[in-house]
Amino acid sequence: MAQKPLPRSERRRLTHVDRSGRPRMVDVSEKPVTARRAVAEALVAVSAETMSLVIDGGGPKGDVLGVAELAGVMGGKRTSDLIPLCHPLALTDLVVAVTPDRVAGVLRVRAEAATTGPTGVEMEALTAASVAALTIYDMVKGVERGVEIRSVRLVSKSGGRSGEWHRGTDGDDDGGDRPIDRRKPGERVAGRIGGKRRGPA
Amino acid sequence: MAQKPLPRSERRRLTHVDRSGRPRMVDVSEKPVTARRAVAEALVAVSAETMSLVIDGGGPKGDVLGVAELAGVMGGKRTSDLIPLCHPLALTDLVVAVTPDRVAGVLRVRAEAATTGPTGVEMEALTAASVAALTIYDMVKGVERGVEIRSVRLVSKSGGRSGEWHRGTDGDDDGGDRPIDRRKPGERVAGRIGGKRRGPA
Amino acid sequence: MAQKPLPRSERRRLTHVDRSGRPRMVDVSEKPVTARRAVAEALVAVSAETMSLVIDGGGPKGDVLGVAELAGVMGGKRTSDLIPLCHPLALTDLVVAVTPDRVAGVLRVRAEAATTGPTGVEMEALTAASVAALTIYDMVKGVERGVEIRSVRLVSKSGGRSGEWHRGTDGDDDGGDRPIDRRKPGERVAGRIGGKRRGPA
Amino acid sequence: MAQKPLPRSERRRLTHVDRSGRPRMVDVSEKPVTARRAVAEALVAVSAETMSLVIDGGGPKGDVLGVAELAGVMGGKRTSDLIPLCHPLALTDLVVAVTPDRVAGVLRVRAEAATTGPTGVEMEALTAASVAALTIYDMVKGVERGVEIRSVRLVSKSGGRSGEWHRGTDGDDDGGDRPIDRRKPGERVAGRIGGKRRGPA
Amino acid sequence: MAQKPLPRSERRRLTHVDRSGRPRMVDVSEKPVTARRAVAEALVAVSAETMSLVIDGGGPKGDVLGVAELAGVMGGKRTSDLIPLCHPLALTDLVVAVTPDRVAGVLRVRAEAATTGPTGVEMEALTAASVAALTIYDMVKGVERGVEIRSVRLVSKSGGRSGEWHRGTDGDDDGGDRPIDRRKPGERVAGRIGGKRRGPA
Amino acid sequence: MAQKPLPRSERRRLTHVDRSGRPRMVDVSEKPVTARRAVAEALVAVSAETMSLVIDGGGPKGDVLGVAELAGVMGGKRTSDLIPLCHPLALTDLVVAVTPDRVAGVLRVRAEAATTGPTGVEMEALTAASVAALTIYDMVKGVERGVEIRSVRLVSKSGGRSGEWHRGTDGDDDGGDRPIDRRKPGERVAGRIGGKRRGPA
Repeated sequence: MAQKPLPRSERRRLTHVDRSGRPRMVDVSEKPVTARRAVAEALVAVSAETMSLVIDGGGPKGDVLGVAELAGVMGGKRTSDLIPLCHPLALTDLVVAVTPDRVAGVLRVRAEAATTGPTGVEMEALTAASVAALTIYDMVKGVERGVEIRSVRLVSKSGGRSGEWHRGTDGDDDGGDRPIDRRKPGERVAGRIGGKRRGPA
Repeated sequence: MAQKPLPRSERRRLTHVDRSGRPRMVDVSEKPVTARRAVAEALVAVSAETMSLVIDGGGPKGDVLGVAELAGVMGGKRTSDLIPLCHPLALTDLVVAVTPDRVAGVLRVRAEAATTGPTGVEMEALTAASVAALTIYDMVKGVERGVEIRSVRLVSKSGGRSGEWHRGTDGDDDGGDRPIDRRKPGERVAGRIGGKRRGPA
Repeated sequence: MAQKPLPRSERRRLTHVDRSGRPRMVDVSEKPVTARRAVAEALVAVSAETMSLVIDGGGPKGDVLGVAELAGVMGGKRTSDLIPLCHPLALTDLVVAVTPDRVAGVLRVRAEAATTGPTGVEMEALTAASVAALTIYDMVKGVERGVEIRSVRLVSKSGGRSGEWHRGTDGDDDGGDRPIDRRKPGERVAGRIGGKRRGPA
Repeated sequence: MAQKPLPRSERRRLTHVDRSGRPRMVDVSEKPVTARRAVAEALVAVSAETMSLVIDGGGPKGDVLGVAELAGVMGGKRTSDLIPLCHPLALTDLVVAVTPDRVAGVLRVRAEAATTGPTGVEMEALTAASVAALTIYDMVKGVERGVEIRSVRLVSKSGGRSGEWHRGTDGDDDGGDRPIDRRKPGERVAGRIGGKRRGPA
Repeated sequence: MAQKPLPRSERRRLTHVDRSGRPRMVDVSEKPVTARRAVAEALVAVSAETMSLVIDGGGPKGDVLGVAELAGVMGGKRTSDLIPLCHPLALTDLVVAVTPDRVAGVLRVRAEAATTGPTGVEMEALTAASVAALTIYDMVKGVERGVEIRSVRLVSKSGGRSGEWHRGTDGDDDGGDRPIDRRKPGERVAGRIGGKRRGPA
Repeated sequence: MAQKPLPRSERRRLTHVDRSGRPRMVDVSEKPVTARRAVAEALVAVSAETMSLVIDGGGPKGDVLGVAELAGVMGGKRTSDLIPLCHPLALTDLVVAVTPDRVAGVLRVRAEAATTGPTGVEMEALTAASVAALTIYDMVKGVERGVEIRSVRLVSKSGGRSGEWHRGTDGDDDGGDRPIDRRKPGERVAGRIGGKRRGPA
C-alpha cells in the first residue's frame, strides 16, 4: 500500500529533525510563497444497517454527514494546534464532503484545502479528513461497535517546489483515487444527487 | 471488517441526533459515574526504507516516535474541542505508544485513556491514536510520499452500562488485536525492548 | 427590559472582583455539587427574503440552521476559554435549536446546558446561543448586510443556592419566554414540525 | 431593524453553502489582498443600580469594563475557532471599548478590527463585541439577574470588493450609529473622560 | 537555590516517564479526591523608570497590572493545553495579583489556584504566574528592552498525599517567601492599599 | 539586571495602552512586512541529583528534554492565544533546545522564532522558552520540589524598525548570553555532543 520512497538524493534526512536529533519546524523563512492545494480522503467502514440508518433514516438522515463535514472543516483549521511541527497558516479554502458508498460499504470522506504561502496544506487536508471520520465514528458508535476508519491518505497535491502529485491507481482497491482535477467538488456532487441532498454512489 | 450491529432493541436511533433531527450531546446528567477505560490503535504503513530511517537512524532515531507519542497525548486531551458532540471530561490516564513492526511494515500506534465519569473515553483513545498517526505522517512525508494510515479502530473498552468489550479476532488481519488486559503497556514494552528504548517487534 | 436588581442584601459586591479591585474567579471550593441547568436564547432579525432563503431554499435549506446549531454546541464547550472568570466545567448536556419565526421576522436560537457541579451553566447557555447567532450572521451576510442579533438573554435556570428562575413575561415582546420545563426540547420540536425537519413557527 | 437585502443579482445563493448543500469556507484563493477594517457594537442593558455599581463603585469601578474589553480582544482573536466557516486571518488591529451610557441605560461595546488580506474582518469585530458583552453579563449577573444583550450588529466596514458600508440611521434607536471615521477611538474617549478613566456619556 | 531532593525512597523515577522511557500522564485513576491548593510567584525586574510608568502614570496606570492579572487567570485555565503531561482539571479558584515592589525593583506576580480532585494544581499556579509575567513583558517591552523574568517558583501547596509544603526562607533573597497561610489574598492587599487600587509595597 | 530604558523620546507611552487607558493591540496595519527573528532563553535550576537523573538516567534519559522541547514549540505557536495583546502571526521557524549545564546547575532552554510580517516574534520566543521550562518543572517535580525557573529573557532580535539587538554581557552571570549569530542551532549542538544526543556542557 505504501508508495515507493523518493530517490535517495531527496531523502537524506527526516525534515523535522535537525542534525542533533531535535525536532524543529522546518524553517520556511526563505521559501517562496505559492498557491498550494491538497486533497485527502478517509474511508469509514460501516455495516449495511448503519449505512441505511445514515442514508435513509427519517429525520436524522443528513445530519451524521453534515455534522461530520463541519467537524472536518473546523478540525482542519486546528491542524497546527494538533500536529507539533506544522506551521500555522492562513487557509484560503477548505471543504469536506462525506459520500456514502453502499457497494464498498464505506462512508467516503474527502477533504480539500488550499492556501497561498511558503508551506503546503497536506496536513490540513489529512487532519480535516481524520476529524470528519472520527466524528462519524462518534455518531454511529451507539448503533455499531467496532466501526473502523480504514484508510486516511493523501489523494493529490499541487504547488510548491515539488509540483503536482497524484496517488497512483495501483494501490487503489476501492475506486477512490481518481484524479480530482477534472471535476470540482460542487459539480461532482450536484450531478449525482438530483433533488435529494445526498444519496448512495 | 465492520462488526455486527447491536441487536435491534439497542439501536433504535443514533444517539447524537434527537427526534427532530437536531444534533445534540447525549444527556448524561443522570448517568452514574464509573471508572472507564478504552484502548484504540492506528496503523501507519511505511516503506522498509522509511521504517529503517525511523528505527535505525542515528540521532533522529527515537524522535519520530517520541514526537508522535507526545502529540497523541496532547491531541487526546483536545478531543472535546474537535469532536462536536463529545462531552468534555477529566482524563485520569492517557498514554500513547508507537511500536515499529517491520514484518507487517507498519508503525503501530496504541492509545489508552481512562476517566472516572458518566461517559466513556473511546473517542479520547481514538483521537489520541489518530493525532499520533497524523504526526508520524507529517514527520516522514519528506522522505516518503503517500504514506497511508491504514486502520484506526477501538481495541477494547471497559466501564459504563455496556461493560467490557474486546474487538474479535475475526477481522484481525495484522495480528494487532490481541487482548490488552493481560499486559500493562509498561510491561509489554519493557519486556520487549531490553536495553534499547524501542526496537522492531 | 432589564430585570429588577436583587435585594440589597444579596448584591453587596460584584462577585468577580475582590476587595482590592482585582478580578478573580469566584472561589467555589466550598460550594456543594448539585445538578444545574440553564436555557438561553438569542434572536437574529432577518429580512423576509433571507428568511425564505434559509427556510425554503432548495439544497441549502437546512444547512444554515444545522451549521449554526452545531457551532453553538461547540462554542458552548469553549465558554471558559472565552469568558475570563468562568470556571471550566464538565457539561453533561448541551443542545442548541434554531427555529425560524416568519411572523416575528427572526431566527430564534435556544440553547440549553446542564452540568453537575459547584457552579451554574448560565454562561455556557448564553455563549452557545451567541455563537450560533454569530454563525447565522456569518452565513447570511453575503445576501443581507446589516443583520442584527436583537436579544441574547437567559430564559431560565435551575439548581444551586438560588434555585429556579424564569424570565418574567412582561418584557416578552416576541412570545419566546414561555417556561421550558413543561416540554422537552425533542418533544417541542417534533410536535411542531411534523414530517419536515424544520418549518416556520 | 434588518436592512434591505442586496439586489437580486448579488444574492443568488448563500455564500457558505455550495451547490450540493454542503457548507464550505468561501474559496478566497483568488481574491486580492486589501486593507480591511470593520466596526461592530453590542449594547448591554442594565438597571440603574448596576450601572452605578459599574461606574461609581469604589475599588471595582473600572474593572468590569477593563475585563470585558480585554476579553473582547482575546475573543476576537479566536473568531475562526468559533465560527465554523470563517477563515483564519492575521489581525493587524483590534480594540474594544465599553462606554457606560446612563441615559440609554446601556453599556455600549464597540469593537474595531483590521487586517490586510483576502477576506474581511466583520466577524472578528462582531465576535469581539459579543464576547465583551457576555463578559459584562458574567461579571454583573451576581447583582442583577436577567441582564439582556440587546443588540449586536455591524456599524461599518471598509475594504474589499464591496467597499465602504455604514449602517443607516433609520434603524438607529439609541444614537449609537454615528459614523466612526471622523474620530479615532482614542480621541473619542480621551475627550470625554478628562481626569477620570471612564465616565458616563 | 534549588531545594534538596526528596529522600531516595520517594524519587525512584521521574513520574511522567514509564519504564520503557515513554512519556505518559501519571495514572490518577485510583487516587483519592481531595481539596488542593497551590501558590506560585514570578518576579519581573524592571527599571525605576518603567516601574514609575506602570505605577504612577496617568491613565494607563492600573492597566498593565490589570491586563497581566487577567492574562494570568486565563493562562492558568489553559495549563493542560500547554503542559503535555498535565491532567485537565476543574479549577475551583484562581486569582493572580501583581504588586509593584519599588525597593526590590520588581513587579511581583502571585498566583493562587485550587481544585478538588485527584491531582494537584502546582502547574496551574505556575503557568498563571508565568503568563502574567510574560504579559507584563509584552506591555512594557516598548519602553524597556531586556526586561527579565527573574524567578518563577512554587511558594506553597496543600492537599494530596504529600500534604502541606512551604518554600523555605533560606533561598529567599527578596523577601517574597513568607508563608501565605496567615493572610488571604484579599485581606493582604486591601490592608495595604487603602483607597488607592494599587500602590508600591 | 534590567537593561537601561530607551531614550525618553522613544518611550512616551506604553504601546499597548491607548490615550484613554484602554488596552489595545498595537495597530500594525501600516507597518512594513520584514523578516524577523528572535532568540530567548530560560534557565531551570535543579539539584545535582535531578540533573543526573535527567542526563544520565537509563531509559528516561532523553525524554524530559525531548518532551520539554516539543512542548516549547507547541506553546510558542499558542502565543497569541495566551498574551492578550499579541498579534496572531504565521511563524516560519521555531526551534527549542534544552541543554544541561552541570557546572551552572541549570537546564538551559533556548528558543528561536522567525516570521515574515509586520510584527516581531519576541513574545513567541519567550513564550516557547517559558512553556519548555514549565514542562521541565512538571516532569521533575516528583523527584525535586522547589525547582526554580531562574531567568526568562530575550537574548537577541533582528528585523523591524529597531533592527538588531543583542543582550549585553554585563548582566550575564551564567555565561549564557553569547551572541547566537555566529553558529546555527544545529551546528552548535551537533558540535558539542559528538555521538551522544545530549550531554552536559
